[in-house]
Amino acid sequence: MKKINIGLLGCGTVGTGVAKLLIENRELIRSRVGAALNLKYVADIDIQTDRGISFDDGVFISDAQKVLDDPDIDIIIEMIGGEGLAKEFIQKAIHNGKHVVTANKALIASHGNTLLRAAAEKGIDFAFEASVGGCMPIIKSLRESLVGNRITSMIGILNGTCNYILSKITDEGKTFEAALSEAQASGFAEADPTLDVEGFDTAHKLAILNSLAYGMEINLKDIYIEGISGITPLDIEFAGEFGYRIKLLAIGKDKGDAVEARIHPTMIPFDNILSNVNSNLNAVMVSGDAVGDMLLYGYGAGMMPTGSAVISDAADIARNILSGAKAGRVPLLSYQSENIRKIPVMPVDEIFTHYYFRFSALDRPGVLSKISGILGKHDISIKSVHQKGRKTGGSVPIVMLTHLAKEADVKKALSEIMLLDVVGDKPVIIRIEDQNGQD
Amino acid sequence: MKKINIGLLGCGTVGTGVAKLLIENRELIRSRVGAALNLKYVADIDIQTDRGISFDDGVFISDAQKVLDDPDIDIIIEMIGGEGLAKEFIQKAIHNGKHVVTANKALIASHGNTLLRAAAEKGIDFAFEASVGGCMPIIKSLRESLVGNRITSMIGILNGTCNYILSKITDEGKTFEAALSEAQASGFAEADPTLDVEGFDTAHKLAILNSLAYGMEINLKDIYIEGISGITPLDIEFAGEFGYRIKLLAIGKDKGDAVEARIHPTMIPFDNILSNVNSNLNAVMVSGDAVGDMLLYGYGAGMMPTGSAVISDAADIARNILSGAKAGRVPLLSYQSENIRKIPVMPVDEIFTHYYFRFSALDRPGVLSKISGILGKHDISIKSVHQKGRKTGGSVPIVMLTHLAKEADVKKALSEIMLLDVVGDKPVIIRIEDQNGQD
Repeated sequence: MKKINIGLLGCGTVGTGVAKLLIENRELIRSRVGAALNLKYVADIDIQTDRGISFDDGVFISDAQKVLDDPDIDIIIEMIGGEGLAKEFIQKAIHNGKHVVTANKALIASHGNTLLRAAAEKGIDFAFEASVGGCMPIIKSLRESLVGNRITSMIGILNGTCNYILSKITDEGKTFEAALSEAQASGFAEADPTLDVEGFDTAHKLAILNSLAYGMEINLKDIYIEGISGITPLDIEFAGEFGYRIKLLAIGKDKGDAVEARIHPTMIPFDNILSNVNSNLNAVMVSGDAVGDMLLYGYGAGMMPTGSAVISDAADIARNILSGAKAGRVPLLSYQSENIRKIPVMPVDEIFTHYYFRFSALDRPGVLSKISGILGKHDISIKSVHQKGRKTGGSVPIVMLTHLAKEADVKKALSEIMLLDVVGDKPVIIRIEDQNGQD
Repeated sequence: MKKINIGLLGCGTVGTGVAKLLIENRELIRSRVGAALNLKYVADIDIQTDRGISFDDGVFISDAQKVLDDPDIDIIIEMIGGEGLAKEFIQKAIHNGKHVVTANKALIASHGNTLLRAAAEKGIDFAFEASVGGCMPIIKSLRESLVGNRITSMIGILNGTCNYILSKITDEGKTFEAALSEAQASGFAEADPTLDVEGFDTAHKLAILNSLAYGMEINLKDIYIEGISGITPLDIEFAGEFGYRIKLLAIGKDKGDAVEARIHPTMIPFDNILSNVNSNLNAVMVSGDAVGDMLLYGYGAGMMPTGSAVISDAADIARNILSGAKAGRVPLLSYQSENIRKIPVMPVDEIFTHYYFRFSALDRPGVLSKISGILGKHDISIKSVHQKGRKTGGSVPIVMLTHLAKEADVKKALSEIMLLDVVGDKPVIIRIEDQNGQD
């Protein structure tokens, strides 16, 4: 019987999922691929802890080099994570002419251009579906299903931890801190949650998606990143009154000679299906000139959903091998290498969007006129103003929604407004993504 | 420059979309595929009507045979529709060794087993992504992205006409007839809407999906089909009171030695994301042992969304040709031919689900006890009962929701209940798909 030999490096959560699927669904996978995906080795520094899998003798080992050097291994699946050993092992795998599958978004976002170029030169496949959106086939969709489309925008909820926390604040009125604790207790957040809640993980994913959609080199460093730690139940409540939910969005838009690439908490209207993506689920809405809007939705992390995406990559490569296809059947970054350009990311100051402002201001005649005067002077047109409650002599929240305004103008106006003696605290600014209100 | 020659048969709505994309996005597609997808011929019996496309001289012709016989043509795209000429041309294309792309769900559902077998024997690719769900990559997802999963169920909103009509009834309280007229006026329903509103189109699509998911021959004839023409604003209103929306669902479930395959109006809870799929949009939720629940959402029909799916198939085939991959790199029906079985469709009488009943009954003591007595006798356990309004001496609606019950028992009970002299009219029965209420 034909078989494709796989070496798995790293048997943590997702690695264990991959091993389980390869073993438990072996016959199913064989009946679809036409050959067994044979898990020849699983290497991990910890071979003591029980993974709940009965490996055949000699499969579960601690020596990764043995796997990398075995001439029978066709595909290396890297599930170590991080940018140290993982990078070194992947380079070795490429050097040894082995196809590579990884879920390592940090590595691809930071070193993808170099690694993928090396893989292409060596004539091997390098697949990373599981690096964005867990089980959702967003990379396959961009590279294959949407091949006939000019992609115009992508809007994604790409971090389950943030979405879980925001859903808790929204549905149960919890504070950010309480929701984070609960997420940690439920296993939906790490002990150190910075990478997730401050938006860095989402940025890694957007860097990858922008490259695939727009034919650009992977560019992580220019992405604007703002996390969710400043989101309060009060703003979520007000958002709800205006028909919006707050989500941490990854926004990647084609702007002709540049792309928008930004991560920030964003209000989206209830009738946008993304606003119904709750708990730890992920989704991404891709807009293209032919498809209009298309959405993928599913679990963006976790042992088995991520494992499923890894298996799909391994099966793709196996099918290439079995059918005699040259590597690079589908270009690694979606476009032929000679068509990949350096496209600049638009500075956030240049973007136009709608805004929600919440000021804390004295409840006194004339205050509104002062604030709106400054906004007007900076070309910011107000769509609606709402004073929340009354407190003569004290401070009340004043909420404003704007028409389309330029970020640089907003910054200038707000710094002037903060100098007003009737305005206390730093105002809250939340961007709004509302296709129903284009002006 | 390398090129792949395409012959397009049929230039109606979707055919025109395909031609537009191949011409207007030619350079974009080339930069991704690595070769031009060259539209060598477009054949249609009507070459007079302006399609809004400027074809090069000699491209737009009326002679389909010329296209089928041209040795330079690599891929035939069949956009004629129906089961007559389309079938004949596809057979000729296969005979001549040309790869085939089609969106013809009726043809695949009825003759797919034979046509795909012929294609496999001839060693050509035969692709039909656009036959289900328009732009959504549901076929690619089942065949490739979910290759490591045992699929357990698929629940889809697969007909935009029905979803548009149901959304109109739900949101605007219109009758079925009024909503249908509006759909026809807006171009969302055909002059003869039978194929759509009676569920046949949805059944064609489910037959295809079941085959791909479960490794079974395509089986259209055993699918249980019930359309939406009996749905009233009253039942939609009551559904809303219980937290449900009514959608026409295609339900395909793995039941071990059999599959469920049924099309009917169904209540689904508000917190199921499918209940937020409105207007003419489509979606399908696929559940697998690794991914959990994964959803695709987008336009299920229309010139450009369907055109996009057709182009993705043509690009896949082009990539196989360019990379030297043997045809059948991915098996046409998802499983290797020797692993495709005849799996029986479970008779609808055997299924267990939750039910909504609406009886019209005299507002008189003892009526409820008679009805519930008959239900109990047939093993149907009532979850809740609601008498809607009061009309002493007249008829009122009595609504009941059940726990899991067997369809055959429901039929027996209802025919007994209809014999009661206190119950008028035929009761309304709507099935409920509620994962929150498993008992």
